[in-house]
Amino acid sequence: MRMTDLIQKKRDGEALSREEIRWMIAGYTAGDIPDYQMSAMAMAIYFKGMDMEETYELTMAMLDSGDKIDLSAISGVKADKHSTGGVGDKTSLVLCPMVAACGVKMAKLSGRGLGHTGGTIDKLESFPGFSTSLTEEAFLQQVDQVGFAIAGQTAELCPADKKLYALRDVTATVASMPLIVSSILCKKLAAGADVIVLDVKCGSGAFMQTEEDAFSLARALTEVGRRAGKKVVAVVTDMDEPLGNAVGNALEVKEALAALRGEYKGDLMELCLTLGTQILREGGAARDDGQARAMLEEAVASGAALEKFAQFVRAQGGDTAAVYDPALLPQASVRIDVPAGAGGYVARIHAEDVGLVSMRLGGGRAAKDDEIDLAVGVVLRKKVGDAVAPGESLGVIHARTRETADAAAEMLRACFEIVPDPVERPPFIKGVVK
Amino acid sequence: MRMTDLIQKKRDGEALSREEIRWMIAGYTAGDIPDYQMSAMAMAIYFKGMDMEETYELTMAMLDSGDKIDLSAISGVKADKHSTGGVGDKTSLVLCPMVAACGVKMAKLSGRGLGHTGGTIDKLESFPGFSTSLTEEAFLQQVDQVGFAIAGQTAELCPADKKLYALRDVTATVASMPLIVSSILCKKLAAGADVIVLDVKCGSGAFMQTEEDAFSLARALTEVGRRAGKKVVAVVTDMDEPLGNAVGNALEVKEALAALRGEYKGDLMELCLTLGTQILREGGAARDDGQARAMLEEAVASGAALEKFAQFVRAQGGDTAAVYDPALLPQASVRIDVPAGAGGYVARIHAEDVGLVSMRLGGGRAAKDDEIDLAVGVVLRKKVGDAVAPGESLGVIHARTRETADAAAEMLRACFEIVPDPVERPPFIKGVVK
Repeated sequence: MRMTDLIQKKRDGEALSREEIRWMIAGYTAGDIPDYQMSAMAMAIYFKGMDMEETYELTMAMLDSGDKIDLSAISGVKADKHSTGGVGDKTSLVLCPMVAACGVKMAKLSGRGLGHTGGTIDKLESFPGFSTSLTEEAFLQQVDQVGFAIAGQTAELCPADKKLYALRDVTATVASMPLIVSSILCKKLAAGADVIVLDVKCGSGAFMQTEEDAFSLARALTEVGRRAGKKVVAVVTDMDEPLGNAVGNALEVKEALAALRGEYKGDLMELCLTLGTQILREGGAARDDGQARAMLEEAVASGAALEKFAQFVRAQGGDTAAVYDPALLPQASVRIDVPAGAGGYVARIHAEDVGLVSMRLGGGRAAKDDEIDLAVGVVLRKKVGDAVAPGESLGVIHARTRETADAAAEMLRACFEIVPDPVERPPFIKGVVK
Repeated sequence: MRMTDLIQKKRDGEALSREEIRWMIAGYTAGDIPDYQMSAMAMAIYFKGMDMEETYELTMAMLDSGDKIDLSAISGVKADKHSTGGVGDKTSLVLCPMVAACGVKMAKLSGRGLGHTGGTIDKLESFPGFSTSLTEEAFLQQVDQVGFAIAGQTAELCPADKKLYALRDVTATVASMPLIVSSILCKKLAAGADVIVLDVKCGSGAFMQTEEDAFSLARALTEVGRRAGKKVVAVVTDMDEPLGNAVGNALEVKEALAALRGEYKGDLMELCLTLGTQILREGGAARDDGQARAMLEEAVASGAALEKFAQFVRAQGGDTAAVYDPALLPQASVRIDVPAGAGGYVARIHAEDVGLVSMRLGGGRAAKDDEIDLAVGVVLRKKVGDAVAPGESLGVIHARTRETADAAAEMLRACFEIVPDPVERPPFIKGVVK
């Protein structure tokens, strides 16, 4: 087989066979196929696509390129959750304890990641002593006994995906449906859960900018996941503004704790209830959506979800004082309100740009070894559809210095589109694809 | 500027600016832009194309990546010729002396090349002592005094093209109109002639498989060439069978000499008359096509063209004995006829496959340092449209051993498509684009 011939085949719109895909991914992982051929292939796939069979084979070839986590030592159904990424996304911190409190276990591997805020792992380091470096044995034991764990990856899952994703990132080939599907699913399959729920974001700041594209992606993910023998559900959600109100590491933890205490009723809780419902139903813990949702609401109302979160923090070595008293979380010394200029109604909040405000304040990481500041960030006071009076606060900047706060305030104001006429808030949950 | 953004821009069908193209080509030549980004860009260009302005800018950027030949020391009009490549193409050997005999000078740089036969330079080494290693000064002086010279390239012309072509070759991105146009033209512009004629081959073995594509390429070449301030004419010709009858180094020289003696009247001479007509007219040596053609025919009939060829061989240190007595050229010891099986009419001769026969006999070069055998090759006895009686010779194999000859004979027979009903030979010259 010659890679040039495979590139040409795909370029001309033909389907690649199982053998060709396996040969290509094995060769690329081993370094026998150079980056310059793989990037040309990725661009050909961008233009010509891949059918379901090819996408499945690509997923499985990338899955087989590395280690797989064996969760069989954990009793009962194991679930996992993935989001295609969003600004202010603290879903895992709320969803995992809610679901675990209802009896379905969640084994979650997470990363630090580059971006506007740290990853889930960074956020959890807001609790002194908290560690995400668990041995595989400790991880399995904790999921089994506490009901969930969130740990950094130790095994080498899907090295082919890691290599290919880095290449796609610098060759404008990220936004290709089959490449996105295989990249997401190979890692979820390697992580070993039985039930996988996927949060597919849709909107100007997301991979999938239109609802049509987001539903196509959701359908492809569930179909390929099913072929691989898993229960996969995808929820399509809006990402035309940040999720929840907080963007920043400790600020997001604080918001997650508010949600677990039942004090937060917005889009974040709606998302956790929707995702959790799918998990409980597919995991067999509830007979239908109505029962599942009621169980999840009760887990919050009764305090069971918050208690589960505290158990989790304790199990991973963290100080739980801040779980019950969020004022103990890292705090920024400078806080300033960002007043609106003219009044009106919020038509849009540019999520990516709000992320850049957090980044600018020091809350994110541009390079792998950058230190991040857990305390800084943004808390929005207004969301899409809200009325704004002239001079009313749009949000609060949490910063280290007055100078960075002022610069961030200017940036945050520019994130808001305010219009004179009332704006109807679009539905947040666009649909569920099973 | 970031290369990823430029790839994305082209991927999304936007035009790249002059500054972007220049930055990209300079960065790629210098090694600052890696192959994996350039190959993704090439694939994006394959799918999204480039407009005339972009193609022109790409051509000029590649031209400016290296040296340029200054022909101003040569008096009068200087012409150059390029072919998009074909099996059995010995056009330069016939065209240059014909044109030079009519008063227009030709400054031709040539390569050894990989392929079915050697390049023009290899073919000329059939004359003992012939050297294509000329200093630039000697080259200019010979063109000025003899009327033409054919030399190997010493200056580094268009290193960007050299690097990009090698990359395209292994990433299935050769067959892209703007990339083909810029690759051909940058080298011709660097070679410094005032008049450039281009032979655009069309057919199953060529870059451009359909007449429509070949004419598009011809139009793009002439338009971009004109923007660059040159007189450019493109002739679209058929390549559904080899050009002329001989394929092989010394065999092609022998055929060229026959043409110069006026003993060959087929497609090869028709091509040389057509290309030469364009050169004489554009070069101002003839007032119209009719006069130009008559001058060229007279140059052959009078022996002036053959005499010019002999002057050229002598000027480059070669023994001219074989010019007047072609039996002195390198000859293979084994010659066998290849008889037809059933009779009928020749519908097609697969040019690429005939090339492979020459290659197999040792007449071509697969790797840069391969020795080539000047004596071996194929002489076709039948061309498309010819009637064939059962057992009649389709061609003659010239080989070193009986064993390789027999194997080559089998291969050559398979190159012929013979059908029961008469076949009309398609027009060889498809058109001229000025």
